[in-house]
Amino acid sequence: MGVNILGKIILKDRIFEDGVLKIENGKIVYIGEKKESKIDNIDYDFSDFYISPGFIDIHIHGAFGGDFLDCEYEEIEKIAIFLASKGVVGFLPTIVTAPIKDMREAVKKLEKYIRNQKNGGKALGIHLEGPFLNSKYKGAQPEEYIIKPDINILEKLYSPYLRVMTIAPEIDDEFKVIKYLKERNVIVSAGHTDASYDLMRDAALNGVSHITHLFNGMRPLHHREPGIVGYALVNDHVSVEVIADGYHLSDVILKMVVKLKPRYKVLLITDAIMATGLEDGEYRLSNQRVIVKNGRAVLESGSLAGSTLTMDKAIRNIIQMAGVNIIDAVYMASYSPARLLGLENRKGSIEVGKDADITVFDEGFNIKMTMVEGKKVFSP
Amino acid sequence: MGVNILGKIILKDRIFEDGVLKIENGKIVYIGEKKESKIDNIDYDFSDFYISPGFIDIHIHGAFGGDFLDCEYEEIEKIAIFLASKGVVGFLPTIVTAPIKDMREAVKKLEKYIRNQKNGGKALGIHLEGPFLNSKYKGAQPEEYIIKPDINILEKLYSPYLRVMTIAPEIDDEFKVIKYLKERNVIVSAGHTDASYDLMRDAALNGVSHITHLFNGMRPLHHREPGIVGYALVNDHVSVEVIADGYHLSDVILKMVVKLKPRYKVLLITDAIMATGLEDGEYRLSNQRVIVKNGRAVLESGSLAGSTLTMDKAIRNIIQMAGVNIIDAVYMASYSPARLLGLENRKGSIEVGKDADITVFDEGFNIKMTMVEGKKVFSP
Repeated sequence: MGVNILGKIILKDRIFEDGVLKIENGKIVYIGEKKESKIDNIDYDFSDFYISPGFIDIHIHGAFGGDFLDCEYEEIEKIAIFLASKGVVGFLPTIVTAPIKDMREAVKKLEKYIRNQKNGGKALGIHLEGPFLNSKYKGAQPEEYIIKPDINILEKLYSPYLRVMTIAPEIDDEFKVIKYLKERNVIVSAGHTDASYDLMRDAALNGVSHITHLFNGMRPLHHREPGIVGYALVNDHVSVEVIADGYHLSDVILKMVVKLKPRYKVLLITDAIMATGLEDGEYRLSNQRVIVKNGRAVLESGSLAGSTLTMDKAIRNIIQMAGVNIIDAVYMASYSPARLLGLENRKGSIEVGKDADITVFDEGFNIKMTMVEGKKVFSP
Repeated sequence: MGVNILGKIILKDRIFEDGVLKIENGKIVYIGEKKESKIDNIDYDFSDFYISPGFIDIHIHGAFGGDFLDCEYEEIEKIAIFLASKGVVGFLPTIVTAPIKDMREAVKKLEKYIRNQKNGGKALGIHLEGPFLNSKYKGAQPEEYIIKPDINILEKLYSPYLRVMTIAPEIDDEFKVIKYLKERNVIVSAGHTDASYDLMRDAALNGVSHITHLFNGMRPLHHREPGIVGYALVNDHVSVEVIADGYHLSDVILKMVVKLKPRYKVLLITDAIMATGLEDGEYRLSNQRVIVKNGRAVLESGSLAGSTLTMDKAIRNIIQMAGVNIIDAVYMASYSPARLLGLENRKGSIEVGKDADITVFDEGFNIKMTMVEGKKVFSP
């Protein structure tokens, strides 16, 4: 009955170096030191490897040649399987700004996928990055499709699977869209925004609780007008995404963020695009051409166009660049996103009673196995 | 024999609420709780007040109508007495960028003052702010007198009393001036500078150990090129000055600085100009007109031109703006500067054996008495 796994189990505050994990009916039912347990029959001996909570990426546009903006079921599944190979057990397919009709169609296809998904990492809902953004900080969002916040348009895009929406709060009159989303329990994230400190404070009071790729695509920190970045860095109640690919943020910034913010408010994300998992070359994002060189994705304008990062690398990078320990790095890729999504009672950490969402990797963060709810979704 | 003082004694890590302090021959010879001491004869009963280490301001251009650039002995003394009334026991008269001949003359006058001083807060040496600065970040330094670093010119300005020199390290070829100063045990401070992160790192390796009014008059923090500000915020070995007047830095920035840096590397300074202690109106800084309104000093260009801050207010402000406790706030105004100046064995904190440099204030930071080396230099 059940599956028993040996390995170095990464918990929220320590590592069981010689741990054993028991899974039954998709749930974790036992965690302990091998020598103290009475478990003899070991199904997987990963003694040399880490057993980690699986990673949750709440901001990913695509991978392996597919973009969630226009993926059919099979392509989405292909991405989900690719993500599992990088340790991802849960993700929010993220839709870039595009014509409303295209975004709507993408939402419909994702709804269908979410209801029927069987393989790979699990799509936990949808993230809309736009279209209600500030074109002053458009980044790689196509300017021609950026529009003023409008409840009628939002109703076309709305889905019960919508979990996160990125919006520029300063263009949302009376925070109408923010309030609409908040009432429906959607996480409202400020991004591609020129929000001042005071505007962000007001937006937070009205429901914005998260910040999309902090520092990227927003008003910079200024010593007399700290803006949204300053707000995020000194107010613990907002959580922030960081893209730890070495291109979007310097190591100095990562060090500052992890020192200033509590770890449960820092989320590692990839912001990955279709080129992820493929060779350098030419790709696209929404209607724009993207050139990928040494894994760095840019528009023809030179703007960074998402990343080709994967979550395993994000963890490795935050350890190397910011000196974070492995426990906290994994936490920011699992528990922090689970908590933001309100799933922390079921997912995001290795604890008895929780879903058996785990990934196994070696010292070099090479993934050796991934399980979603006790089912193996990847092995090399 | 000696002087006994009662009060709430602010130590480096705690407060003796019912403390007694004994001074003999200008030194602190006893600190204890009143009830445990055998001291009966109390010379000063400040039971309701704080007894604090006196403040040390390493960056001050003038006050009370005088500018150290062109002060005669009596005017310098007038400023020193004024500073004592604000709790200052030690300061570095700071010379703004001006024609070399004027700066040199100012140095000579200050040397004479330092050798003969008798009253007020004690001038502990000289700070030269320029002339080797980057005019891109000149702030209120007059551009026409900013020059390329040059050892011959430096030799004209050099004084055995020179303790700090502010320089833009990126314009100092092969860090020649920096090395010259370092060899003579002068603290080299980067300021009015466009230094990148890497340049600042190299400058630090060559002797720059301090940063003049962090964030003000320098390349801003950028998320991909964190620059000198980023360097300062994540590298503990450099100390930084902050101007906590509410104009130069937002409260958010102060919160970040005190959270990121150890307290002994954060120095409260005033950067005060001649208008300090006087009414709003028109003043000057070097050859420039300064307009002071609501205590905020600006050039005609709108650039901030130093401050009208005093150290007592800087402490109150950092408590109110950044949520620092009184112990740490006082520390940043006393021990941190003493440590930078290499005087921490004699000054900067209330400890047995140290100089009796103390100031006494009430809950509102109104100064009730100041002593330098056991001699009363101010009482209201």
